[in-house]
Amino acid sequence: MIDNSYYSQENHGPYELAGIGDFELEDGGTIPNCQLAFATHGTLNAAKDNAILITTWYSGSSKIWEQVYIGKGRALDPDKYFIIVVNQIGSGLSTSPHNAPAPIAMSKFPHVRIGDDVRAQHKLLTEKFGITQLQLVTGGSMGAQQTYEWAVRYPEMVLRAAPIAGTAKNTEHDFLFTQVCSEAVTSDPGFKGGEYASNADVAEGLKRQAHVWCVMGWSTEWFKQQMYKPLGFETVDAFVTGFMEPYFMALDPNDLLCMAWKWQRGDVSRNTNGDLAAALGRVTAKTFVLPISEDMFFPPRDCEAEQKLVPGSELRVLDSICGHLGLFGVDPNLLAQLDKNLNDLLATPVTAKVPVQTH
Amino acid sequence: MIDNSYYSQENHGPYELAGIGDFELEDGGTIPNCQLAFATHGTLNAAKDNAILITTWYSGSSKIWEQVYIGKGRALDPDKYFIIVVNQIGSGLSTSPHNAPAPIAMSKFPHVRIGDDVRAQHKLLTEKFGITQLQLVTGGSMGAQQTYEWAVRYPEMVLRAAPIAGTAKNTEHDFLFTQVCSEAVTSDPGFKGGEYASNADVAEGLKRQAHVWCVMGWSTEWFKQQMYKPLGFETVDAFVTGFMEPYFMALDPNDLLCMAWKWQRGDVSRNTNGDLAAALGRVTAKTFVLPISEDMFFPPRDCEAEQKLVPGSELRVLDSICGHLGLFGVDPNLLAQLDKNLNDLLATPVTAKVPVQTH
Repeated sequence: MIDNSYYSQENHGPYELAGIGDFELEDGGTIPNCQLAFATHGTLNAAKDNAILITTWYSGSSKIWEQVYIGKGRALDPDKYFIIVVNQIGSGLSTSPHNAPAPIAMSKFPHVRIGDDVRAQHKLLTEKFGITQLQLVTGGSMGAQQTYEWAVRYPEMVLRAAPIAGTAKNTEHDFLFTQVCSEAVTSDPGFKGGEYASNADVAEGLKRQAHVWCVMGWSTEWFKQQMYKPLGFETVDAFVTGFMEPYFMALDPNDLLCMAWKWQRGDVSRNTNGDLAAALGRVTAKTFVLPISEDMFFPPRDCEAEQKLVPGSELRVLDSICGHLGLFGVDPNLLAQLDKNLNDLLATPVTAKVPVQTH
Repeated sequence: MIDNSYYSQENHGPYELAGIGDFELEDGGTIPNCQLAFATHGTLNAAKDNAILITTWYSGSSKIWEQVYIGKGRALDPDKYFIIVVNQIGSGLSTSPHNAPAPIAMSKFPHVRIGDDVRAQHKLLTEKFGITQLQLVTGGSMGAQQTYEWAVRYPEMVLRAAPIAGTAKNTEHDFLFTQVCSEAVTSDPGFKGGEYASNADVAEGLKRQAHVWCVMGWSTEWFKQQMYKPLGFETVDAFVTGFMEPYFMALDPNDLLCMAWKWQRGDVSRNTNGDLAAALGRVTAKTFVLPISEDMFFPPRDCEAEQKLVPGSELRVLDSICGHLGLFGVDPNLLAQLDKNLNDLLATPVTAKVPVQTH
């Protein structure tokens, strides 16, 4: 366990912590007294049928959803819905390598899978809140992985699903990309096999990971149009050193590696002995698949191939030259398209599959 | 100077070496007794007007042109043309960091620019061969950079130009990609600031560079269709460890860095005070711009923007899911398209701009 002031209420709050007890993991091992950090917006109604679950992406937290996506008059409107954003295990806010005590601290942290996160979130929603029905599950990138996993694993609970810029089964190309990200960190001599004293010891590796994200996170067209200028950076170098590097240098290397391992192996077909069509065929949620047009590692055609396996689903491509990191919310037009699609989805009538239980 | 048996006649020959004397560089410094390694195919006719120049890419040599692109009945037909493939400075065959003697050995090697290569090649062609007119200049990737530089710098000499999968002015995105490649190597503790005893000391860094090339060199679709299988690899991991890693691990780190620095700064507008339109407006060669459809870092739209600045040029996109590394020649359909386009280009009548000098 090490201190990293980045992961604080000041930077990411307000959020709450809830324990879900000792949590057994799919790949073996247990997280003792597993804590989930979550933020809520709006009020859970008496019927407990107005909840929306949002899952988080690699490097991100619940905070960016509050800052960029949730708001009165938006699709994710806290006046209408009880919105709960749950930070994934390994995110740095929920139990994670850097904040876990021995014997699972740092390099000893066990492997966590997307399915583990979804089971943990299910426990939180059902046991702490008594929620048995979700109007919507949505998330971007690794959040899309969790969204798909929710729709496959708990179809009776998910009325609508909106995986954004992500896949149900991670691609081989994406696995390699994530490997490059992780190697940037593990190759830093300061990483010391995960037993560094401070993330600052791994600053060079984190910088190099930031550079990899520069190449793959945005798009060639985004750079061609010098879209870093509207963000306040006069040159690409100023953007890299003033935005991308500090963003990654604040993060904990082991936390990133925990998430990366999970991301690489996201695969809903683990629920159906490797049969992806069978897994996605289980989905009963009304599903909008929402890739970003210029995404360099979750390209629309990869997302479309999966969308075709989800009964009654629709492909709605979000057009943006931002590429994957359009998720950061720097393109108002992308946000408008997302809101439009989420509004459409939320306006689509669906039938509750099981009676909502009130507790 | 260190020994690296990869750079040998056995692996890359037959090739010849020609000295062009002490060669002054644009960015300062001199390469004493600069040697260019080149391979020729076919016979230079008496009029010396049947020559084709081919320039080489990052990591590649003249050998792949012999193996994949040149042949009887092909567009690059040695029965019709005198084809000369010149290995770039820093390639490992021509004078390069790893084979240069003190005081420019290894980390002391001076910065070389695309313009330096083109001037060196011009010296070789005119002084050694007496060639003053080229039926065609072509090359892929960094070879495209050199092709554009030739057409801008020596318009009276270049009748036709075919830049393949490359740009006249390197993009900012491409600069960042190349930086990631270079950092994979320089961050290896075995690199020792460029003063390693053997490239094997930098094996881990070279492996990481290979992984970066996996992500950016092919395309998401290439992996989705598991195109490594027709190459004889059952899994993506077998492909990475059996092909991509050994390919890069054989190379010299300083040589790669020399080429990468050059690649990052390729820019024909250096000839016209930064005015790209003015530079490309100088081109009188009949030019076919030949990007590869799925290229992740020289995308067709970047190439098209430049093509529009070249008078009388045509954009001919080579359709292949191989992406940039389609240049390796693994897609017969890509090679057929390239041959078709080069045949069309070579069949296009052009007027010699200056009388051919015979010596």
